[in-house]
Amino acid sequence: MDRVRLAPVGLGRWARVLARAAQRGDIIELTSCFSRSEEKRAAFQAEFDVPRAAARYEELLADPEIEGILITTPNDTHLPLIAQAAAAGKAVYVDKPIAHSLEDAVAIADAVSQAGVVFSVGHSARRLSGHRMMKRWIDDGRMGDISLAEANFSNERGLELTPETWRWYAAKSPGGAFIQLGVHHADTLQYLLGPIRSVTAHARKLYTKSEVPDAVMAILEFESGPLAYLGTGWASPGVYRMNLLGTKANLMYDLDFTRWSESHLADEYSSLHAQAYGEIERREVELPATDMFREQLEEFALAIGGSGRVEVGAADAIRALAVVRAALESSDRGGLAVDLGEVIEQAGAGSVTGSR
Amino acid sequence: MDRVRLAPVGLGRWARVLARAAQRGDIIELTSCFSRSEEKRAAFQAEFDVPRAAARYEELLADPEIEGILITTPNDTHLPLIAQAAAAGKAVYVDKPIAHSLEDAVAIADAVSQAGVVFSVGHSARRLSGHRMMKRWIDDGRMGDISLAEANFSNERGLELTPETWRWYAAKSPGGAFIQLGVHHADTLQYLLGPIRSVTAHARKLYTKSEVPDAVMAILEFESGPLAYLGTGWASPGVYRMNLLGTKANLMYDLDFTRWSESHLADEYSSLHAQAYGEIERREVELPATDMFREQLEEFALAIGGSGRVEVGAADAIRALAVVRAALESSDRGGLAVDLGEVIEQAGAGSVTGSR
Repeated sequence: MDRVRLAPVGLGRWARVLARAAQRGDIIELTSCFSRSEEKRAAFQAEFDVPRAAARYEELLADPEIEGILITTPNDTHLPLIAQAAAAGKAVYVDKPIAHSLEDAVAIADAVSQAGVVFSVGHSARRLSGHRMMKRWIDDGRMGDISLAEANFSNERGLELTPETWRWYAAKSPGGAFIQLGVHHADTLQYLLGPIRSVTAHARKLYTKSEVPDAVMAILEFESGPLAYLGTGWASPGVYRMNLLGTKANLMYDLDFTRWSESHLADEYSSLHAQAYGEIERREVELPATDMFREQLEEFALAIGGSGRVEVGAADAIRALAVVRAALESSDRGGLAVDLGEVIEQAGAGSVTGSR
Repeated sequence: MDRVRLAPVGLGRWARVLARAAQRGDIIELTSCFSRSEEKRAAFQAEFDVPRAAARYEELLADPEIEGILITTPNDTHLPLIAQAAAAGKAVYVDKPIAHSLEDAVAIADAVSQAGVVFSVGHSARRLSGHRMMKRWIDDGRMGDISLAEANFSNERGLELTPETWRWYAAKSPGGAFIQLGVHHADTLQYLLGPIRSVTAHARKLYTKSEVPDAVMAILEFESGPLAYLGTGWASPGVYRMNLLGTKANLMYDLDFTRWSESHLADEYSSLHAQAYGEIERREVELPATDMFREQLEEFALAIGGSGRVEVGAADAIRALAVVRAALESSDRGGLAVDLGEVIEQAGAGSVTGSR
């Protein structure tokens, strides 16, 4: 089989994480790449043995060899880059969040839909072995009825931000830790428990010098009944956790964040513990080895080739981003619960997500 | 030294847990006991080798040998029992929560204060080795500045309630899981982080057949800045956890709830993990052996003898109970943040807690 020919756009730290993930498999070929910085292009080509690079974005999109692009640029640049790529007929993989605003997200959904190109959003976390196992336990009834879910994704990034980085600015990264990290759990929790009905939240700027919050806590109510807590901070060592409490069992998932970017190792540094109703002893649940970034990129590549479908497209990504918007609105309103469906409708995204 | 002569009042499951704890040491003598049930009195006397029992509460209080009583009766009976005991000059230990309502709690505080008797409330959880270690790390600066705290205390009780038990009823146990379990963390979190400023919460009745909620989530904002999540459920296997996220380190505490009532074993079934800023490896923090129930009862006994003071009296207990009241108010108001100081003032408890 011919490899699928992809090109990274934006050649920073995350582009390198994804390139390493792609090169762990044999489905993807990194054929070209683009950054406005000649230095970054040269370094990236050398590190990943990429045959060519484009000096202008239009040049990349005009390259007939390129089947799809991998976007890891700042959130507020996603829409213009995706709209151009879709118009040029290129498939698009974009890192999460889909955009910095729901309005941009809707425009992105329209652009890829009208162009009919394959579109994938990097909500990779739901692919972690622990979450896939949670989903299996929910589906086969081992959890019973879930009443509480708890999730935290935090790291030290807020302490290290400088005005030179786009994440410093509320206009580009509204919600700070919550849009960068919490949005992962906002997707995974809906993957596990279905659509969220309402969001109650408080966002605070405690120790970061940047414009964005570094402490956000939200209570999510699901249409299916359960409550979930979603916490994200940007002022502590890394945390990645999720707990599910059900009438028949609890599952406690803990991933060592220091291994986050090496997704082929993440399961080795993870644990999933189960406590069953009426049993004294807890037990550790074995986690099959996975590689979330590689698997997501390969799914994208295979979908370009016509094999299978992308798991997370615009609809799920918008549902996750809407949680961020709703949380910030709720915080502005003193914690008052904000209806997620209304937030989605107001942004004109109802038709994309299929809600109401 | 002569042993301090105490008498349990209400001889159910928890009275037995406390009696076992007292008898692990040699400071306390269980001299008498009281229950309206002759059968319970006889069984308790036999199990714990208690020399005598009172058939009426007044008889117990008239016993000049008895120095203090240990109350483990339903929450809504605390005030009348304590008021009578204080008037009779007996020291009082009462299990948490101090009462089912803030109004009762204030009347209790007044009664014991006017009588000048030693008064202790069973907020034992803050004595757990893991929490004492957290306090030490906070005080000596190893945590840095804390931005997020997370706590959960849940068990299956709500699934097992019947109309024959007082915990079934909202009038006797408002908040359900939150007043029975969450109130522990409400105390411990304030012990660790200082007074709470506001409470945002949602309480839901999902799977219990009783009148009270079995799923409650609250976001607490502290006067010192941090946000905390406090979750309690009554529809799952047991959970007891607390995480602190600081700029220099995280501490993750996990106690196996199945050992909760055997407090001399609890530390063996607990773990405290630390993740420090800039370090890849987590490490387990060694926990000195403790015995929270025994220590709290012995502290009470020693205070009766004039040695030392009780750590948790009416003021802290009211601050913890006020969190329950505020959470239920917030939930009724769609999650709107409720000011804890106002709740305390409205209940006339401002002078007890020393707030505003």
